[in-house]
Amino acid sequence: MTIFVDMDEVIADTYGAHIKIYNAEFNQQLNSQICMGSEVWQKVPEGHQESVRLHATRKGFFRDLNPINDSQEVLKDLSEKHEVYIASAAMQFPNSLEEKSNWLDEHFPFIPWKKRILCGDKHILFGDVLIDDRSYNLEQFSGRSILFTSPHNINDNSYERANNWFEIADKLL
Amino acid sequence: MTIFVDMDEVIADTYGAHIKIYNAEFNQQLNSQICMGSEVWQKVPEGHQESVRLHATRKGFFRDLNPINDSQEVLKDLSEKHEVYIASAAMQFPNSLEEKSNWLDEHFPFIPWKKRILCGDKHILFGDVLIDDRSYNLEQFSGRSILFTSPHNINDNSYERANNWFEIADKLL
Repeated sequence: MTIFVDMDEVIADTYGAHIKIYNAEFNQQLNSQICMGSEVWQKVPEGHQESVRLHATRKGFFRDLNPINDSQEVLKDLSEKHEVYIASAAMQFPNSLEEKSNWLDEHFPFIPWKKRILCGDKHILFGDVLIDDRSYNLEQFSGRSILFTSPHNINDNSYERANNWFEIADKLL
Repeated sequence: MTIFVDMDEVIADTYGAHIKIYNAEFNQQLNSQICMGSEVWQKVPEGHQESVRLHATRKGFFRDLNPINDSQEVLKDLSEKHEVYIASAAMQFPNSLEEKSNWLDEHFPFIPWKKRILCGDKHILFGDVLIDDRSYNLEQFSGRSILFTSPHNINDNSYERANNWFEIADKLL
């Protein structure tokens, strides 16, 4: 079985990074609970939004992300049974490309370079399962689409959902 | 129609770059005619091979390549009629990722980031046409596979061939 796994908000914790940077720089107390149903930038005062939206263009942003809980253990098991590819819509941020490659080397060394995809849109992927937190990425996929829960998508009911990596393990191992 | 186009040796002249660097550094007279049927590194003395094989790991190598003759004009026309994606097996060289993105910005600005794919193997691509100089990339593609002529593949008869970009135009425009 060929499984595609998104990076940001599926194996890499971008919300956590946005909140940490924002709180430190603006001396705030934002947390992920406050962000439920929204993007992080939507939950800060208007005068701060541009700053948050530009986090992703900063050098090091994608290199320093924490892995999502249990993603390493479950993906390791999955990759022993299936063809697991990482597929990230990274081309929007050219600064992220090498950082994402280095980040995978550190946190997911069992996913070799041949199984990594940095792309724009994901309509071109051919396989059995796509795990992603953005429904617009799942829309045109011809296989099984699994929406991975992230604060921004909690009100989206259009796809089969996994709330965490243990639920992925139950579904696919 | 969805068309995938490889980068190295299809729209980006890596042979020319290898030969230019090698001739300058070793004071030689290598040319692409001598390389017919071979990789560049196979046509230099054994003591020079390692140096040539490491060209691709140098900073700037992929940023400074010349576009292949007529690729810009024909791809521009193709991209107005079809869904054209650039698909490069670039993940082997993490140093190349941002350089390839910047190179496309300069030479193929009409191919937006959403239509760029940096991947490992190409079995995961879902579309109608794949244009590539490596038959191992064409092998598992389910659509029409076109082998783009490059010195190393002149003796390969396993696929429909295009010798230059005008032949691609004849086939697909």
